[in-house]
Amino acid sequence: MTVRVGVLGATGAVGQRLIQLLDPHSEFEIAALTASEDSAGKPYRQAAKWRADSPIPDDVAETRVTATDPSAVPDDVDLLFSSLPSSIGEQVEPRFCEAGYVVSSNSSNARTAADVPLVIPEINADHVDLLEVQRDERDWDGALLKNPNCSTITMVPPLAAIDEAYGLDSIRVATLQAVSGAGYDGVTSMEIIDNAIPHIGGEEQKMEAESRKLLGTFDGAEVHWHGADVAASCNRIATLDGHLENVWADTVEESTADGVARAMADLPSIDLPSSPEQLIEVFEEPERPQPRLDRNLDNGMAVSAGGFRETTDGVQFNCLAHNTLRGAAGASVLNGELLLENGYL
Amino acid sequence: MTVRVGVLGATGAVGQRLIQLLDPHSEFEIAALTASEDSAGKPYRQAAKWRADSPIPDDVAETRVTATDPSAVPDDVDLLFSSLPSSIGEQVEPRFCEAGYVVSSNSSNARTAADVPLVIPEINADHVDLLEVQRDERDWDGALLKNPNCSTITMVPPLAAIDEAYGLDSIRVATLQAVSGAGYDGVTSMEIIDNAIPHIGGEEQKMEAESRKLLGTFDGAEVHWHGADVAASCNRIATLDGHLENVWADTVEESTADGVARAMADLPSIDLPSSPEQLIEVFEEPERPQPRLDRNLDNGMAVSAGGFRETTDGVQFNCLAHNTLRGAAGASVLNGELLLENGYL
Amino acid sequence: MTVRVGVLGATGAVGQRLIQLLDPHSEFEIAALTASEDSAGKPYRQAAKWRADSPIPDDVAETRVTATDPSAVPDDVDLLFSSLPSSIGEQVEPRFCEAGYVVSSNSSNARTAADVPLVIPEINADHVDLLEVQRDERDWDGALLKNPNCSTITMVPPLAAIDEAYGLDSIRVATLQAVSGAGYDGVTSMEIIDNAIPHIGGEEQKMEAESRKLLGTFDGAEVHWHGADVAASCNRIATLDGHLENVWADTVEESTADGVARAMADLPSIDLPSSPEQLIEVFEEPERPQPRLDRNLDNGMAVSAGGFRETTDGVQFNCLAHNTLRGAAGASVLNGELLLENGYL
Amino acid sequence: MTVRVGVLGATGAVGQRLIQLLDPHSEFEIAALTASEDSAGKPYRQAAKWRADSPIPDDVAETRVTATDPSAVPDDVDLLFSSLPSSIGEQVEPRFCEAGYVVSSNSSNARTAADVPLVIPEINADHVDLLEVQRDERDWDGALLKNPNCSTITMVPPLAAIDEAYGLDSIRVATLQAVSGAGYDGVTSMEIIDNAIPHIGGEEQKMEAESRKLLGTFDGAEVHWHGADVAASCNRIATLDGHLENVWADTVEESTADGVARAMADLPSIDLPSSPEQLIEVFEEPERPQPRLDRNLDNGMAVSAGGFRETTDGVQFNCLAHNTLRGAAGASVLNGELLLENGYL
Repeated sequence: MTVRVGVLGATGAVGQRLIQLLDPHSEFEIAALTASEDSAGKPYRQAAKWRADSPIPDDVAETRVTATDPSAVPDDVDLLFSSLPSSIGEQVEPRFCEAGYVVSSNSSNARTAADVPLVIPEINADHVDLLEVQRDERDWDGALLKNPNCSTITMVPPLAAIDEAYGLDSIRVATLQAVSGAGYDGVTSMEIIDNAIPHIGGEEQKMEAESRKLLGTFDGAEVHWHGADVAASCNRIATLDGHLENVWADTVEESTADGVARAMADLPSIDLPSSPEQLIEVFEEPERPQPRLDRNLDNGMAVSAGGFRETTDGVQFNCLAHNTLRGAAGASVLNGELLLENGYL
Repeated sequence: MTVRVGVLGATGAVGQRLIQLLDPHSEFEIAALTASEDSAGKPYRQAAKWRADSPIPDDVAETRVTATDPSAVPDDVDLLFSSLPSSIGEQVEPRFCEAGYVVSSNSSNARTAADVPLVIPEINADHVDLLEVQRDERDWDGALLKNPNCSTITMVPPLAAIDEAYGLDSIRVATLQAVSGAGYDGVTSMEIIDNAIPHIGGEEQKMEAESRKLLGTFDGAEVHWHGADVAASCNRIATLDGHLENVWADTVEESTADGVARAMADLPSIDLPSSPEQLIEVFEEPERPQPRLDRNLDNGMAVSAGGFRETTDGVQFNCLAHNTLRGAAGASVLNGELLLENGYL
Repeated sequence: MTVRVGVLGATGAVGQRLIQLLDPHSEFEIAALTASEDSAGKPYRQAAKWRADSPIPDDVAETRVTATDPSAVPDDVDLLFSSLPSSIGEQVEPRFCEAGYVVSSNSSNARTAADVPLVIPEINADHVDLLEVQRDERDWDGALLKNPNCSTITMVPPLAAIDEAYGLDSIRVATLQAVSGAGYDGVTSMEIIDNAIPHIGGEEQKMEAESRKLLGTFDGAEVHWHGADVAASCNRIATLDGHLENVWADTVEESTADGVARAMADLPSIDLPSSPEQLIEVFEEPERPQPRLDRNLDNGMAVSAGGFRETTDGVQFNCLAHNTLRGAAGASVLNGELLLENGYL
Repeated sequence: MTVRVGVLGATGAVGQRLIQLLDPHSEFEIAALTASEDSAGKPYRQAAKWRADSPIPDDVAETRVTATDPSAVPDDVDLLFSSLPSSIGEQVEPRFCEAGYVVSSNSSNARTAADVPLVIPEINADHVDLLEVQRDERDWDGALLKNPNCSTITMVPPLAAIDEAYGLDSIRVATLQAVSGAGYDGVTSMEIIDNAIPHIGGEEQKMEAESRKLLGTFDGAEVHWHGADVAASCNRIATLDGHLENVWADTVEESTADGVARAMADLPSIDLPSSPEQLIEVFEEPERPQPRLDRNLDNGMAVSAGGFRETTDGVQFNCLAHNTLRGAAGASVLNGELLLENGYL
């Protein structure tokens, strides 16, 4: 028995990645694709400018796209994956939840809302039960679950390993982010060839807030954010996929480079279809991980880390994840699997 | 009256940049070019694989290259610019100094030696008088002056401005460095297209040590290094020229983003031919400076900064400089001008 | 005495290049800047998203942009440079000409119209007198002069040299075009990083038609197009500026590689302010010209050529020109200088 | 029963690709890896600087590398894949053949020798029987079979389709070649970022000669080369893998764009393990094929084509193939499969 699922915002870059992941998925079956009013009624092949390096799945190609409205989505669809622009997500996601749909969303709206769980299943799966609070408070039959921003997902698993082993005090992180993170048309070639851009609007604030929520504790009623002092600096560079990050983590207890590497290597994964076998791949070679070489580890769902050095108050290291797989579409699918596993569908 | 100068290691990438700067220089006249034994005796045109986007100056093209040995350089040459590989610099630079030549060197050897001044003229010109101590101790008629590593030069002027205004406590810096920093053949295209490399051997250590020596104080006898805690993380990206850096500076006194920006904009330059009019160009736009747009400011000799934000214990900002001009060949020429100005020639 | 000039479509990529060239121009003075209705009334600084690597000239920055309409442009402006999208150029350029303005246009509309001269001054300056026919036929006080497409401009000077020496029979040309040719936002980074696109809509047809008109003869009444058989294949690659082209030219008389190279080197330039001293720079090194190394020759106004080889029926060679200077803004300015020289202002 | 095979030059870029293809191969089993004297005796993991984006197969990693000498390779190895530099291949390949080994070689030496078959199995499998002549003439127990240059392989299948349908008269081809074609260290980043190089030493001559041999006919005694007039122009661009080519083919009989596209789509593949199901993938979209999107079709063994247009004397089109798979390692493996199938092992 598979769950019938839909994709909200199916024509965008993350929407296309979602389709690539959902089409062959063993537990999910694509039953609805939504987009803007302009596309409604058209077959997906015509509505979307398909840009992946594999062809559109045949049945998806012929599926008629509907408007992004609860009335347009069949009632027997149980789970919706949302990759809407946040301004639209903010408006329509609550309406879908009210109408009884469970939404696993990659959109940035509401990620830090008190009653919306923000989850990386291998890290804080227990936060999903904040949905009980959410349903009570909002009187929803549906539910809204968020995954974090792609640059946040990259560093949080390594940080969680450090936090458990030594306690986290202060975090400084510089990112080297791929152009796909801005969507297909987000970065022009003239901006980025022989260049780098040391600013991604709102990204630093997302990393600083979302990481503390993810590393926080859920007491059954609310999430207590982690108290670490986080400051991020975000750069766009000329890579296609894969966010690379340089992190300094000051620890509460004294930490060593070896100890931190081991803690990361030992961090357990979780038993869900899309989870990687090894959550964090730890490299001994100081020049790894690198975006092109390591972004596809474990189908793009593993995080990798390397370059461990001790500093005065902690350690520094580098980490990497595939931003549109582990950091976006794959993260949403994984959250959908968690919802199924935990009985929310 | 111009000073007759030579270039040690004239065929390499920095050597070529030195020739581009020295050929039209009003105070210096190229009178000697040295290279490896293989090249000795050949006209420069033949010895060097010229790769600049301007042609070889005609007279330089016909100059015969000599071996890199004091006996091969004419006695009436007063000043030598050295861009030798550090393993060779280590061996031959002292021999040139012993033979009476004054050497302005970009090579990384001996930069942190106690009696070798490491100088950025706009920042710590007074350190040049450490040469008196050097001559006493080493019994040299010549002298050895060093400029720092390209990635160090980029961040030290901004840091000096902060140090003067608020005092520096702790520094974290992530670099996005151009491929030219590794020399013409240093980074292959297969390594860097659609990729980034989070490690540059020895670079982090250079930034951590050299910055503290540059920001230190010279008491007439020795340089007391600055006590700040510096930790660097160095990345190579697919830019041709221009090192971009993300810096977090924790300050002794409470600092503001505005105050730090103003301190940088107000940092005076110095009156030497190659010095920029405005030492640090401060941008209000958060997405600047960018390598391709800003590396050539003031003939590639200005540093630029932007993206100021307050953090818990200080500020974060981005800075940029042209790595083979401000960060290498231009830095050596500027040091040569300082030596002339201060009567060391 | 300078001529007062205006720029139609002043906020676009070519418009910005025009301003960079016109601001310091000895014969022209910027007196009007037009853009879309949205921008009308705003100072240029605010209307344009300035992207050049030099700052906006101060007086230009404060100039108020007007609508692109004859009624909005001062009467004492004599010459207009047009870099409008062709769909708009098609509508408004004739209205400006009717209103008495002389227009030097880079827009692609009307380039092949029988009574509109298409001119590269060093190649077919005599075609400018087709304006007499134009004024007669259209009853215009103004006039409309066109420069060709950037990829056409690159190959026509070398072809003209061959045509004069040996006669041209058949031409095959493959282009490797820079992203700036598509405008600032024309090519996304995801399209072009680690990629090439073997198609530029309409470009092949432009090269095939425009080259034959340019190489044609003007008999005082009409332009007789050259009869050569031209077929082009256009590719976009990840370069910022500079179109590189591989050309096969079958000649009427037997040609040699050396003879063709000499004919190109000997092709005379013309005495206008923006014309290069040497029109075609001929390289002996087979690996030149290259976009990044050679696009800026003679302020980006020279064409360069190399890689000469004999084929069964002629020769093959490579050529290069800066697409937004020699191939667009610089071409229009040069045509404006020709109009002034020839008494059309 | 698998065939025991070896790789000559196993540490190079193509050698590494060969190992990736041979390790999981159903018919071949890696039993010998050779490299230069320096590497002899070392485990492969240590001898090779592995650069692929998948890890070294475990058993290969521990295999001891031997010198590239017949005496060092076990006698029970039947088939050797050679990716030696041509200067070395020229010397040692004949010695291996003399010693009884059958060699499927990607090295460029001897490709045009009269008694050495040059084969693309889907195109001219019958040429393999030239090995009978070779064995007679050279008195070899072994045999030497060659695959063509990567840029030649890309265009020959499309040309073969045209030749069969309409007859080929004259060919002009411009290539846009990936950096991997020059080996891992062949193109520096400073050469190719924001640049293109219109010359690849010897490549044009290879394409012009090899294509005519491949399209020629074997009469049981010798190969009669095709009489078409071929002229190539070769460019290196900033792509990692995948050679894109613009081709003009003048045909003997009148051809149409549609007819040519159909002839290519209908060209049969062959029944060997590494052959693609569809030899030439034909695109209707004029902007395809593109290197990054289409190089991996059918495991990188398909050729793709598009952009069909009629010209005065024939057609023009674009084609693409993965240069280190279809164009090198995969081509050699395929030839090995053909040798097995045809009883030469």
